[in-house]
Amino acid sequence: MREKKNKLSVGAQNLLSIPSLLGTEFLSKAQIEQVLKLSFLFKKCLKQNQAVPQTLAGKTVILLFFEPSTRTRSSFELAAKRLGGNTLVLTKEGSSAEKGETLVDTAKTVQAMQPDLLVLRHPSAGSPFHLDQILDIPIVNAGDGFHEHPTQALLDLMTIQEFKGKIEGLKVLIVGDIAHSRVARSNIYALKKMGAEVSVCGPPTLLPPKVEQMGVEVHYELEKAVKDKDVIMTLRIQFERLNPGQSPSRGEYSKFYGISESVLKTAKADVLIMHPGPVNRGVEISPEVADGSRSVILNQVGNGVIVRMAVLHLLTGNELLKGWL
Amino acid sequence: MREKKNKLSVGAQNLLSIPSLLGTEFLSKAQIEQVLKLSFLFKKCLKQNQAVPQTLAGKTVILLFFEPSTRTRSSFELAAKRLGGNTLVLTKEGSSAEKGETLVDTAKTVQAMQPDLLVLRHPSAGSPFHLDQILDIPIVNAGDGFHEHPTQALLDLMTIQEFKGKIEGLKVLIVGDIAHSRVARSNIYALKKMGAEVSVCGPPTLLPPKVEQMGVEVHYELEKAVKDKDVIMTLRIQFERLNPGQSPSRGEYSKFYGISESVLKTAKADVLIMHPGPVNRGVEISPEVADGSRSVILNQVGNGVIVRMAVLHLLTGNELLKGWL
Amino acid sequence: MREKKNKLSVGAQNLLSIPSLLGTEFLSKAQIEQVLKLSFLFKKCLKQNQAVPQTLAGKTVILLFFEPSTRTRSSFELAAKRLGGNTLVLTKEGSSAEKGETLVDTAKTVQAMQPDLLVLRHPSAGSPFHLDQILDIPIVNAGDGFHEHPTQALLDLMTIQEFKGKIEGLKVLIVGDIAHSRVARSNIYALKKMGAEVSVCGPPTLLPPKVEQMGVEVHYELEKAVKDKDVIMTLRIQFERLNPGQSPSRGEYSKFYGISESVLKTAKADVLIMHPGPVNRGVEISPEVADGSRSVILNQVGNGVIVRMAVLHLLTGNELLKGWL
Repeated sequence: MREKKNKLSVGAQNLLSIPSLLGTEFLSKAQIEQVLKLSFLFKKCLKQNQAVPQTLAGKTVILLFFEPSTRTRSSFELAAKRLGGNTLVLTKEGSSAEKGETLVDTAKTVQAMQPDLLVLRHPSAGSPFHLDQILDIPIVNAGDGFHEHPTQALLDLMTIQEFKGKIEGLKVLIVGDIAHSRVARSNIYALKKMGAEVSVCGPPTLLPPKVEQMGVEVHYELEKAVKDKDVIMTLRIQFERLNPGQSPSRGEYSKFYGISESVLKTAKADVLIMHPGPVNRGVEISPEVADGSRSVILNQVGNGVIVRMAVLHLLTGNELLKGWL
Repeated sequence: MREKKNKLSVGAQNLLSIPSLLGTEFLSKAQIEQVLKLSFLFKKCLKQNQAVPQTLAGKTVILLFFEPSTRTRSSFELAAKRLGGNTLVLTKEGSSAEKGETLVDTAKTVQAMQPDLLVLRHPSAGSPFHLDQILDIPIVNAGDGFHEHPTQALLDLMTIQEFKGKIEGLKVLIVGDIAHSRVARSNIYALKKMGAEVSVCGPPTLLPPKVEQMGVEVHYELEKAVKDKDVIMTLRIQFERLNPGQSPSRGEYSKFYGISESVLKTAKADVLIMHPGPVNRGVEISPEVADGSRSVILNQVGNGVIVRMAVLHLLTGNELLKGWL
Repeated sequence: MREKKNKLSVGAQNLLSIPSLLGTEFLSKAQIEQVLKLSFLFKKCLKQNQAVPQTLAGKTVILLFFEPSTRTRSSFELAAKRLGGNTLVLTKEGSSAEKGETLVDTAKTVQAMQPDLLVLRHPSAGSPFHLDQILDIPIVNAGDGFHEHPTQALLDLMTIQEFKGKIEGLKVLIVGDIAHSRVARSNIYALKKMGAEVSVCGPPTLLPPKVEQMGVEVHYELEKAVKDKDVIMTLRIQFERLNPGQSPSRGEYSKFYGISESVLKTAKADVLIMHPGPVNRGVEISPEVADGSRSVILNQVGNGVIVRMAVLHLLTGNELLKGWL
């Protein structure tokens, strides 16, 4: 039987290794900075067509995806392969989970195949935390229900850092269905740790109760909310997941919470426009804004692969790249 | 943002690189010869169990398949992997396209992940041309609606060259549903560029209007059509896609347009029998002919991987293998 | 056309290579020992974090799976990748088989792509034997109907050897639906060749007719059957595949044939508890037993990858690792 690794606790302030990446709530500012630093290093490498160090060579990353996802799954797969690692994707369809196996049994079986790291997407909030108690290998939470999606927040931070040169002191507005968004939650934790001022704006039915307690300013009117902001993140609205009582119509949503050129009049001229994708064009965001010069939506996608390279590198026990940082 | 590469126009007569492979219509004879030359080189390599040069090492090929395909997808995947490249397959199922994302947004997102090449199969004719205007990376058309399927034509040409020693001057007959066949269209363009004489034969309802304008001879009676031919390509008939008014029954089709031993009596003794697969045995072709000595159907499959190696090698900016050609 | 390799017959007593792995019925004791020896060598390698010899580098393994399987497929994929090989998975969905292609045509097409080995799972008993007559490449049977699943038996043997230090002379009981279990059949053949005494126990309707002729002792009462046993393998019961006339209810099955702590009272104190997975907790086996100290269920999973590495290594024509064994 595999020996239990001496896994550090999730909140450890250890600069050299993070044991599992379960949520940004449990990351220190120093750990976030470490991931960003390494990400920019990898980015420089790729930009200069330098060979990326194959630090995952001979290692295996298993992606256990209980919810469909092309974007996030592809990004993790590419990240692992770029570092020379092997990947194996397991989805719910045709898996033992469909034959009635419990998540814990599935996870233990996966671990028994001796991967070096597990990336988990699961509809139940908290499931990666539960598995982290049981398994010996590092786990990356790739989205757990409405809870957290930490690598999305990290790639968003990287993109802000890239285009604004800093995160501290920036005014960031998150717009949309905050209540059901793991992207929003992970970003609020991470942005605040890095010293940004975070506001949220959305229909009252789609804001979490007592959202102020997360340390964010709350707005209901978009025109007022965007004023003086450095960054506006708009979220994908998933009409299919909302119940009709909660949910505005597409037209209604777009009218009150869609980011259009006219809404942006009161925002800073160099405001950064972000969206985790895929975009509902004309709903959360107008085509002009999505394709406009302030939009960094595609840069987010590119940085996503790179941030995940950094996370996989660090979590599989690699040293920081000595002499590089 | 990725810098726009100085992409050459599709029809460029440049011998050293083809920017994107959208269709055989836009290839020069010299470019086709270049692909074939490199293909035979790779084939020699594989036959002699020589290590294939890993010219795609560190490179990533994304296969974006909006139509199901095992054969073509596998062939491209194997080709990329044989050259040491990473592959990522994205299908329509569970993709952002199902969440309402446009093809252009999907493609831009894919490009943002910084692959080195995109292989696209899409039901809409012209979609790879559209994307080629927008993206900076090379695109290989792996089938666009009823329009083109250039790598299929190139592998067919390679197989003819292999077994006949030449293409120029050969009499080639294409049999079946020409109107809905991207395989036929790509072959007609490519064969004619290489100097072959091309004829088509099929039910009048399944021939494209004004097909003669493509420079082919038109036949409606198979027995007459096969006379003196060097090569007979029969196409897969896709009854499931045809509307009943257009479509003969299986038995009727087989009777009039099926390639059987008796039909082949008037053909040349050494006529080459080709089929892009998968074969409807007893419909387009009799089992005796499909498995007979003149059939090169399985050789086409093997050459398919090799031609795609050559295409991927050339399109990812590799030099011809110096000192090899 | 690919030259026909001089494939050895399946039952060949050749110590240095097995041509195809179709079933344990056709393996000699020496061949089984060879696989186990190499497996333990690979295990030592992995345990000591030694680099595994990349003996599949440049080679391609195609997995042709006509039945859904995550566990076995993943295990083979990981095995091939750990040895540096390329893998390609083909499933029934969206394949040419769905377009009416015969198994033989599909297999010939797959072979034409020049993989070095084919792993086949198919619902029809005997299909890998049939293909082995036709194809030139080595085939590994990954489960054919109710017939055989040889790598499962080999990993079970490896696990027994690991925990008991030997197989010869051990008393092994297989419990459950013997009639429909390829796992049972492959284990009976293999265990008996290695000199174990094998008994089976299950409801009379789920034992094969004339099962005694396989050289096993037959029990109908679990309490009596477990007495003095060194190893108890319990099988997954697949209620969904049984017809109601044959099948007990879950509760009934569990009551009479479920392995619980109370049943194990009469077994040896150090009896090994095995299950091929996925486990129906509380049906074939109680949670206490499944998670208990005698259970090696997860060790089986880990050994599965390793045994398959050994099989792929040997079948792709590699020498035993000289100087290692």
